[in-house]
Amino acid sequence: MGKTKGRVTLPSESNFLEETKDLLERWGADAIRDSDGTKLSDDIKSLDAKIYTTYFVSRNHNEFIEKHMDECQQIYLMSEYTLATSNSIEVNFSASYYDQQVKVDYNHDPKVWWEVIDRTTNEVVPAENWDYDKEKNIVKIDNCEKFHEYTVTFLAYVIWDPTQMYNHITNNWGDVPHDIPFDVRKPNSNKYIFEYMSKWLKENPDTDVVRFTTFFYHFTLIFNNLAKEKFVDWCGYGASVSTEAILAFEEEYGYRLRPEVFVQNGYYNSTFCVPTKEYLDYIDFQQRFVSSTAKDLVKLVHEAGKEAMMFLGDNWIGTEPYGKYFADIELDAVVGSVGGGATLRLISDIPGVKYHEGRFLPYFFPDVFHEGNDPTIEAIDNWLSARRAIMRKPIDRIGYGGYPSLAYKFPKFVDYIEKTCDEFRNIYETIHNVTPYSGLKVAILNSWGKLRSWHTYMVAHALYCKQIYSYNGMLEALSGASVDVSFISFDEVKENGVPEGIDVIINAGDAYTAFSGGDVWKDPEFVSIIREWIYNGGGFVGVGEPTAVENGGHFFQLADAFGVDKELGFTLHTDKYFNTEVESHFITEDKVEDYDFGEGMKNIYATKASTQIIAYSDGEVNISTNDYGKGRCVYIAGLPYSQQNTRILMRSLYYSANKESEFKKWYADNLYCEVHAYPSIKKYAILNNTNMEQSTNVYDGEGNKASITLEPGEIKWMVM
Amino acid sequence: MGKTKGRVTLPSESNFLEETKDLLERWGADAIRDSDGTKLSDDIKSLDAKIYTTYFVSRNHNEFIEKHMDECQQIYLMSEYTLATSNSIEVNFSASYYDQQVKVDYNHDPKVWWEVIDRTTNEVVPAENWDYDKEKNIVKIDNCEKFHEYTVTFLAYVIWDPTQMYNHITNNWGDVPHDIPFDVRKPNSNKYIFEYMSKWLKENPDTDVVRFTTFFYHFTLIFNNLAKEKFVDWCGYGASVSTEAILAFEEEYGYRLRPEVFVQNGYYNSTFCVPTKEYLDYIDFQQRFVSSTAKDLVKLVHEAGKEAMMFLGDNWIGTEPYGKYFADIELDAVVGSVGGGATLRLISDIPGVKYHEGRFLPYFFPDVFHEGNDPTIEAIDNWLSARRAIMRKPIDRIGYGGYPSLAYKFPKFVDYIEKTCDEFRNIYETIHNVTPYSGLKVAILNSWGKLRSWHTYMVAHALYCKQIYSYNGMLEALSGASVDVSFISFDEVKENGVPEGIDVIINAGDAYTAFSGGDVWKDPEFVSIIREWIYNGGGFVGVGEPTAVENGGHFFQLADAFGVDKELGFTLHTDKYFNTEVESHFITEDKVEDYDFGEGMKNIYATKASTQIIAYSDGEVNISTNDYGKGRCVYIAGLPYSQQNTRILMRSLYYSANKESEFKKWYADNLYCEVHAYPSIKKYAILNNTNMEQSTNVYDGEGNKASITLEPGEIKWMVM
Repeated sequence: MGKTKGRVTLPSESNFLEETKDLLERWGADAIRDSDGTKLSDDIKSLDAKIYTTYFVSRNHNEFIEKHMDECQQIYLMSEYTLATSNSIEVNFSASYYDQQVKVDYNHDPKVWWEVIDRTTNEVVPAENWDYDKEKNIVKIDNCEKFHEYTVTFLAYVIWDPTQMYNHITNNWGDVPHDIPFDVRKPNSNKYIFEYMSKWLKENPDTDVVRFTTFFYHFTLIFNNLAKEKFVDWCGYGASVSTEAILAFEEEYGYRLRPEVFVQNGYYNSTFCVPTKEYLDYIDFQQRFVSSTAKDLVKLVHEAGKEAMMFLGDNWIGTEPYGKYFADIELDAVVGSVGGGATLRLISDIPGVKYHEGRFLPYFFPDVFHEGNDPTIEAIDNWLSARRAIMRKPIDRIGYGGYPSLAYKFPKFVDYIEKTCDEFRNIYETIHNVTPYSGLKVAILNSWGKLRSWHTYMVAHALYCKQIYSYNGMLEALSGASVDVSFISFDEVKENGVPEGIDVIINAGDAYTAFSGGDVWKDPEFVSIIREWIYNGGGFVGVGEPTAVENGGHFFQLADAFGVDKELGFTLHTDKYFNTEVESHFITEDKVEDYDFGEGMKNIYATKASTQIIAYSDGEVNISTNDYGKGRCVYIAGLPYSQQNTRILMRSLYYSANKESEFKKWYADNLYCEVHAYPSIKKYAILNNTNMEQSTNVYDGEGNKASITLEPGEIKWMVM
Repeated sequence: MGKTKGRVTLPSESNFLEETKDLLERWGADAIRDSDGTKLSDDIKSLDAKIYTTYFVSRNHNEFIEKHMDECQQIYLMSEYTLATSNSIEVNFSASYYDQQVKVDYNHDPKVWWEVIDRTTNEVVPAENWDYDKEKNIVKIDNCEKFHEYTVTFLAYVIWDPTQMYNHITNNWGDVPHDIPFDVRKPNSNKYIFEYMSKWLKENPDTDVVRFTTFFYHFTLIFNNLAKEKFVDWCGYGASVSTEAILAFEEEYGYRLRPEVFVQNGYYNSTFCVPTKEYLDYIDFQQRFVSSTAKDLVKLVHEAGKEAMMFLGDNWIGTEPYGKYFADIELDAVVGSVGGGATLRLISDIPGVKYHEGRFLPYFFPDVFHEGNDPTIEAIDNWLSARRAIMRKPIDRIGYGGYPSLAYKFPKFVDYIEKTCDEFRNIYETIHNVTPYSGLKVAILNSWGKLRSWHTYMVAHALYCKQIYSYNGMLEALSGASVDVSFISFDEVKENGVPEGIDVIINAGDAYTAFSGGDVWKDPEFVSIIREWIYNGGGFVGVGEPTAVENGGHFFQLADAFGVDKELGFTLHTDKYFNTEVESHFITEDKVEDYDFGEGMKNIYATKASTQIIAYSDGEVNISTNDYGKGRCVYIAGLPYSQQNTRILMRSLYYSANKESEFKKWYADNLYCEVHAYPSIKKYAILNNTNMEQSTNVYDGEGNKASITLEPGEIKWMVM
């Protein structure tokens, strides 16, 4: 592998010119970027590299918004629950919020725009039964039902951009002014963003790439009265609402969005809630507005001869790249953070842009780059997990963040990144226009479908969460596996049936969440479509509580197809006889470690003699399979990410698709290795996904088997 | 403790006269009983002891029923689910049942009495869309919706008494005739039972006690086509149904009971299902019929100068002793099996009879009484767990079952039982008319209330079940604790509020079951009653998933009172800050072992800063408490029975009742010991509940503390 150049972006730093030159050379970098709060110095800008400049559209312009405070962004917030211990109560409704972030909006008549709800009956309290005190931020409710709980949903202005607020508080920025976000749906703001962009483009001739961070509305991120995070949803539309939006929506859709559509019992449309029709309508409505406005900004960038790049996150609401209108924006590029395979695919699969850039870990910050720590460990782990996904669909560029001066003090790290950059370019040049071999077409079925591609179970970006890792592992496993993955929604299937060509559907999630699906499984037409599809030969893999909603004597509505169900208590009196594991099974043939089902699932039992129980412990089925007509179902209790679980999942997919015979077509029998094949260029690669030496038999597509030993992390290219 | 006599019943055996005399003498027995299938010989009958004779009312009379096969008992059964893969399907509806137990009833028009249900839509299929084939036991359904699932609910005759069937199959009785049960609601049967009883009473002058085993209808116990148990519910009314009963019910109540009322999605009204109004109506209807008919039989017994005793179980449906009409029967006694403290209280608390008898373990059968095994171990365990309960409410007699000749071969066992019988009589004589000291009044709140006293979570009598032991332990703990325990239903509270004088309510069970309550917690009036009661100073202890039903932003409808809730996914985006255990707490002050929450409960988190987290592990709250007005709530994830968990529960009760200061009134600080006080007779007893020596400080009611050492299993009586 010779020395190559390009496809790498470096972060900048003042007084670091010579070292920057050295890093540019060694890592083959061809672009330099600034960061939030830093500016590139002229000497850096003069280097032989593209210059990325961060651009904020709807914040970091306090000189404008301070003159138009009525154009601040708005949000619906819910008070804490208040128990009525008498017939009249006072609710200090904004007490649990951070007053530096949000400010109660009394400009719009609370009696019209707010909602007081009896949460014990779920009824709205008539406006004549409550009143408000502007000075004290108190709502007084009369004629209460004693011992019912009440909430007040109020409209507030957001007066501090959440990302800047987070950085400000975390890094103790002290008297740095608070960026006030403004709403481009409002007239002065809308006018301002275009005028400023035109001016800025003229004033920044050195900028090659305008890095939008991001557009108009931040994902929902609300702090509490102690200045700590209270609610965060990377996909939340809460902070995109405004009285203008609600009125425009009403004009177009013919109905008014209640405050409850946004606060939803305090769930705030968590991605884990099955989305309501109203919320889906609102998302579509905002995506159209946001993408058309963003498109106009991007047009200005292009007219100035520059490229437009979007950061994946922050103020990205309405521009989620798997949304219907994203491609219309005509962005040149998207850049995002890479935590592993799934987040890499989240970037690299984005349609409608010319190139995709991934920011790799670790960031060059002192938490990792300090004496006594070896940052190479995290770098290796990050690269090996992302590389599998790159083999399926490469990003076009890689990059790093933080202070390069810190990284420069760790020569072993600099060496490893040098090697990584070369390895990346080598992979990219070999396969970036090549379709990899896929053994199966797999569709992940949930309420969100394509919109939440690869970030399906995300709570906050890349955040570990006890309730999601047992599902997220399934995505991570698939991100670098030799299968085509698509994401489909229940609504699509209801409308058009299961898309042509799908071999296996996966439904994975906790009961009643958007990922399992809840009530959709009570819809006879929908459930019949799925049953018929499986019965005629489809594969169906369920993880956790798939298809779950108590109805008609089943909890899993596909209990009959799975051959397993979950005991809720109602069938405790029914004897359960099927609890014997099969002696061996295709799905677990090459298991080498103990099972790990993560959080697992309690009380799963086999309902049929035909059910093959593959793993059983503590009186519960962990893995099983059942034939259903010509189709097959597989049940798995949980799938945290591991290389063994990746193998178990892959085998489950092939087994459920009735394609076991094709499983070893391109295959390494050591499960810590994987084979990626590119028949059109007659090449294949064998990957060691660990940082230890591995030996494996490798099967090529012709049925030949050869033994091979790979160095730690090695990728070996072979010619067919 | 001197030698005493009486209050003990021996089982009989042929050719065992001398040894029986010896056992009578040593154990002080004063009664002898026969068993199912055995008869007492004349020499045994002539001993100085009361004679109990087993009597079967509605089975074991084949000479009668074979002439009236249309008076067999009936039952509604549901076919397996059948998937419609075409528009017309055939359902072999009785295929999964045992044809020696049940026989399809074609005498009553299937089109009128059966139900074919589309389980995908939950709609009844019109009778014109299906027909049946008597020869093949097949229902053909036309105009099916493809890929919907269908079931056939059919009426069948029960042609083999389940208890006799179970014994017959288990013991290979071969050509012993099958007891055919008959239905005393039908004319010939009703006439027969009285005629036969009168005749039998005349023919059995030696009998002192007629031991009814039992009355008319067996609890639901259905076998499958492999002659194995398919469904068992110790409290199930399924086998009490008949066309006559349904018609009489309709006449009285003005509405017809659908077959679905009985099969209920295949749940068959499992005790774990929240009972429907129809099912509760039916229970009341049958209890009235059964108790009035039983009363007439008992009258005959009394007229013959004998006593009437009921066995607790088998054909006991309609005579459950905590039912409203049980006392009307005017039975003299109830006898039942004692598995521990809760099953002892199940017997000893029964109202409306003169005496209560408990059959202790182990049975004198070869599974325990064989060479190399020490039956004393089980006997000690059984006695020590039951003795705590006896100290609260003694049964009046104890007894044993099986073959005394087997027991006689184990002298150590015979010695231990001799000692036990003396100990029992001594306790009984001391306290049987004395009210023990109770520190608190505790009510267990669920759908069933009093009717399921002490056998609340029972699936089949004393059967271990993974899904119940974490709740059942709470009952076992209470059975021998110094608190007054009552069982109340949601309906009672809705009607009359929380009964006067209750200190603490316990709600314990899995979500949506009859024990947690499900939808009742959505009833604003009901939930307000409970909230107000707690707020004004009541204690509320929740175990598992108390008050759980997703509504208004809570899963636990008392989340606000508990200060904890369960994460279902909908609030994953909301930060959870409260996860720090308090340093020490009254509730766990004397913990000496590791915690054991049994099955525990996942995803419980604290919702409030005021929540005191007492035990926290793996990211989940296990024990916590929260103040709510003047009241207090305690949450516990699970309570399998142990002496430590008994102490944790007792402390939780006192804490939630705001009576910590009274906790040590009568108290042993070693949790393996307990103190029971009887102020009216100025005595108290200190129990060592283990089979090891224990030392403890004992607090008497006056605040005096003394140190004491107890022999294994010792009970020490003290004078105040």
